[in-house]
Amino acid sequence: MGTDVYVILSTPFFADGGIDYVSFDRLVEHCVQAGATGLTVLGQLGEAPKLEHAESVAIVRRLCSRVEVPVVVGVTAPGFAAMRALTREAMDAGAAGVMIAPPTSLRTDDQIVTYYRQAADAIGGGVPIVVQDYPLTFGVQMTAGVIGRIAGEVEGVYMLKHEDWPGLEKISALRAMEVPLRILTGNGALFLDFEMERGADGAMTGYSFPELLTGVVRLSGAGRRDEAHDLFDAHLPLIRYEQQQGVGLAVRKYVLMRRGLLDSDAQRAPAGALSATARQEVDYLLERLARADPGARLRR
Amino acid sequence: MGTDVYVILSTPFFADGGIDYVSFDRLVEHCVQAGATGLTVLGQLGEAPKLEHAESVAIVRRLCSRVEVPVVVGVTAPGFAAMRALTREAMDAGAAGVMIAPPTSLRTDDQIVTYYRQAADAIGGGVPIVVQDYPLTFGVQMTAGVIGRIAGEVEGVYMLKHEDWPGLEKISALRAMEVPLRILTGNGALFLDFEMERGADGAMTGYSFPELLTGVVRLSGAGRRDEAHDLFDAHLPLIRYEQQQGVGLAVRKYVLMRRGLLDSDAQRAPAGALSATARQEVDYLLERLARADPGARLRR
Amino acid sequence: MGTDVYVILSTPFFADGGIDYVSFDRLVEHCVQAGATGLTVLGQLGEAPKLEHAESVAIVRRLCSRVEVPVVVGVTAPGFAAMRALTREAMDAGAAGVMIAPPTSLRTDDQIVTYYRQAADAIGGGVPIVVQDYPLTFGVQMTAGVIGRIAGEVEGVYMLKHEDWPGLEKISALRAMEVPLRILTGNGALFLDFEMERGADGAMTGYSFPELLTGVVRLSGAGRRDEAHDLFDAHLPLIRYEQQQGVGLAVRKYVLMRRGLLDSDAQRAPAGALSATARQEVDYLLERLARADPGARLRR
Amino acid sequence: MGTDVYVILSTPFFADGGIDYVSFDRLVEHCVQAGATGLTVLGQLGEAPKLEHAESVAIVRRLCSRVEVPVVVGVTAPGFAAMRALTREAMDAGAAGVMIAPPTSLRTDDQIVTYYRQAADAIGGGVPIVVQDYPLTFGVQMTAGVIGRIAGEVEGVYMLKHEDWPGLEKISALRAMEVPLRILTGNGALFLDFEMERGADGAMTGYSFPELLTGVVRLSGAGRRDEAHDLFDAHLPLIRYEQQQGVGLAVRKYVLMRRGLLDSDAQRAPAGALSATARQEVDYLLERLARADPGARLRR
Repeated sequence: MGTDVYVILSTPFFADGGIDYVSFDRLVEHCVQAGATGLTVLGQLGEAPKLEHAESVAIVRRLCSRVEVPVVVGVTAPGFAAMRALTREAMDAGAAGVMIAPPTSLRTDDQIVTYYRQAADAIGGGVPIVVQDYPLTFGVQMTAGVIGRIAGEVEGVYMLKHEDWPGLEKISALRAMEVPLRILTGNGALFLDFEMERGADGAMTGYSFPELLTGVVRLSGAGRRDEAHDLFDAHLPLIRYEQQQGVGLAVRKYVLMRRGLLDSDAQRAPAGALSATARQEVDYLLERLARADPGARLRR
Repeated sequence: MGTDVYVILSTPFFADGGIDYVSFDRLVEHCVQAGATGLTVLGQLGEAPKLEHAESVAIVRRLCSRVEVPVVVGVTAPGFAAMRALTREAMDAGAAGVMIAPPTSLRTDDQIVTYYRQAADAIGGGVPIVVQDYPLTFGVQMTAGVIGRIAGEVEGVYMLKHEDWPGLEKISALRAMEVPLRILTGNGALFLDFEMERGADGAMTGYSFPELLTGVVRLSGAGRRDEAHDLFDAHLPLIRYEQQQGVGLAVRKYVLMRRGLLDSDAQRAPAGALSATARQEVDYLLERLARADPGARLRR
Repeated sequence: MGTDVYVILSTPFFADGGIDYVSFDRLVEHCVQAGATGLTVLGQLGEAPKLEHAESVAIVRRLCSRVEVPVVVGVTAPGFAAMRALTREAMDAGAAGVMIAPPTSLRTDDQIVTYYRQAADAIGGGVPIVVQDYPLTFGVQMTAGVIGRIAGEVEGVYMLKHEDWPGLEKISALRAMEVPLRILTGNGALFLDFEMERGADGAMTGYSFPELLTGVVRLSGAGRRDEAHDLFDAHLPLIRYEQQQGVGLAVRKYVLMRRGLLDSDAQRAPAGALSATARQEVDYLLERLARADPGARLRR
Repeated sequence: MGTDVYVILSTPFFADGGIDYVSFDRLVEHCVQAGATGLTVLGQLGEAPKLEHAESVAIVRRLCSRVEVPVVVGVTAPGFAAMRALTREAMDAGAAGVMIAPPTSLRTDDQIVTYYRQAADAIGGGVPIVVQDYPLTFGVQMTAGVIGRIAGEVEGVYMLKHEDWPGLEKISALRAMEVPLRILTGNGALFLDFEMERGADGAMTGYSFPELLTGVVRLSGAGRRDEAHDLFDAHLPLIRYEQQQGVGLAVRKYVLMRRGLLDSDAQRAPAGALSATARQEVDYLLERLARADPGARLRR
């Protein structure tokens, strides 16, 4: 089935909070040209909870009408009513599937499996589902066994957005168990080098250089280990800087703006602001990166 | 300013998941006749996250059009966009204010105060806000000092739905600090007897006998301490049984059905089912209650 | 096997922080005379973490040398070294078993089972173990299935201190699964009336009137349902007041002092102080209790 | 006052669980020769909770008797009795101070400040205290303001082990507030490059190449920014791999063994085992590191 890179899209805003579709289109175009085999919208880093329902639908429709790669739509919500409503609109618009994160209150194995079963029932049979396993943010811990149960028992589940941390052994365990899921890894790519070697099918994350994601996945898939690590290591200082809880999105949008992909790094409130010092730190990292990876040189 | 009892309304459903407005009207009518001075809808126990936006709006409109007492609408949401949208509709429909619970991720004092400031900005100046302080469910702990800061710094905040546990000393502290908020207590009324004596302005909770809430508040407000406790103690076995996290709503709806106020105790999924044994236990508690408080006798 | 009441002992201190063994002996004597079939020391409410190792050992030795009923010793610790050291001393002193609560970091089913297996290995084969299931305090949620796995897989485990909340259905589930554990219930007895009816083998908790525990367990065990509930309901206002997280121990020690069982209600730091208002509220509850249950009248 | 590097020591064990003092001495000697200006023992990564009290004391005594740099001793405990007992022994043995992490139950600003005040009282006036600010592990979030209050109100507090994440802005804030604390940063050095530039006084962490810590601190302190980053970036792939919650200690001990500093990478139970694949990954990282930083070449 080959390897995949689903880039998670930021939602560009103007300084006044309006959605900047020109930047959105440019960002999407860039991701596809960089080799993205899929795109994900309305995730945590897409500021999904700050969008009104109509805006969310508009973004999904625009995206689906402009690209040929599969689109995954984040539909996580505190209740099944909103989840079902958005799922319906997304699938009608041509989405390939929806991504669902677990509510933070889940604790036991059975609670987790039951939640996904109920969610699948709520959104309707047959909708392809991506399970998001991100304990650091959601506080929900899914063992490989639980993920295997979900894959086996819940209709529609076909992909895992893996972002457990540490998570390498979990990939090995899932592969050893032959759990029939596509495994795309997240966590801002902080362990992408080894995740591929453990058997991941690719990445689904939002690092500001999608070229890094596609490059590492491609080199690793081709067995060119040292080259994959060389490329990865060149980006690691920035990857690490971007993968800071809460602040990360501000860093990402700032880099995308520096790259000329977004016109503004504005977020809707509540926004994590980037201090002047932090911007200078990112600038410094970008300079160093350009020396180590010429492909990452800014155009302006 | 006298004392208040805001009854939190359940949302009645048919077995097929549709909203049963006939039962809703009957329940509302009963609460008002029992002496409720206000009503709260779309709270946790109103199964708010299971409602689509249009349904939520319809319920608020119906309620506001049928009663003269003030209506508070729960607008808690994972993002400000949805919160603002529902607030707008609610205030347009005639609501007296909105209730906002903190997101579970808040930890520090400053985070909590900042959140309420941002929320107030997001929904627009001038909307009266009820702060919901319920650490057991939300995991957010607000000191009396933080509540005082919110009251002083955030425009619109006028009322506290107090359901900290233990919470008696907090009421005393808020009163000693002369924090300018109405304090209505929740927690299923489990400490209502002493909360009134500590200086609460009344109750805002959803116990299945609103008569108990208005009765205790009235007797306690009139200084008839022993009578207030006698009435309270008669209901305490059921109050305690209803105040079980997760299961509580099923108990409450079952009692409301046994009382003839709801036609069905159905919940929308995900629903906490009540076992046959639990139903028998509630039946037994109702029999005992009817002997201790003749006013609580079932009509059928 | 009959029914059991294990009273959890408070640790009496003088105002200067020293251990008051005279009060301790008096409290122990009272519990045994009230019908306790076992005693538990060094639990959360025994202020165990505030005791130095030598003090803990001294208390266990004193208790074991003075009573004939079985003694369970709380040995919960952040590491297995301290747990093993105290277990060894406790068993040498004549304890019947040890009680172990899970560390707050456990989440998945497997983590919980593994922890108990490792703990049992660490303290040495053959030591009888009481599993403490108290999600409200420890944040660890054990399903009935997990408890069944622990009972089946971990050597030594023979008893469950059940204090899940809500917890009635869990008792029914464990009984239906025929999990071979004694089930004694905690939670300050807040649901003891129905817990017995669901199949619990008795209580293990620290309510300040052990007579209530033995009375309800005896009446319920004899099938005298109404009488069991009458007795229970008389105490419920105080039971509820004592079962306040954090404050509860101060209430309990104050009542034990009012009853003449402790000379002082002093706690070691950090101590949850009882305000003058709270003391008056407890006094009022004691007066009302004495009218409803003459056996609960204070002697002085 | 210059800059500091306190290396956090692992506790070496034989395969049978006994403490390997020969390896311990070798590790200590290596750290001092690498330029450590202080040493920290009995931290989380020292497997402190797995040591019996007498063992902890023996380690502290041995260390203090063999080095001239200041020694900080971790004394975090679930109760003040054990904390006081270990503090007394540590200070008698010649320790420079003790490190205290907050209990995971703390939430509000006041709770945190109060806890440190009570801890300082409990261990006795005048003992120098290092505050450990590690939200990822302890779940307790201290704002810069709270740390300032602790520094101002609690006697003895002189140093902050900073390991908030993200944490760069907090360093800037503490420096802007002129909080009179030494700030040494942890988090396995994942942000040491920029932490120094933000005003940290150095590092206190346990990365397996103390030379990296002293090197980056020295270069950064001397204003040789690019060189500091070059050195840092060479190690970042391994730093990142070592900074995996739970697994990290196993990685660290394995590297220390590969470096010839420990005879065994054994941990006491419960131990996070390193899979064969993980060992190969670390081996691969070590090979790459040796090419990028010749000083990091293994001797055998």
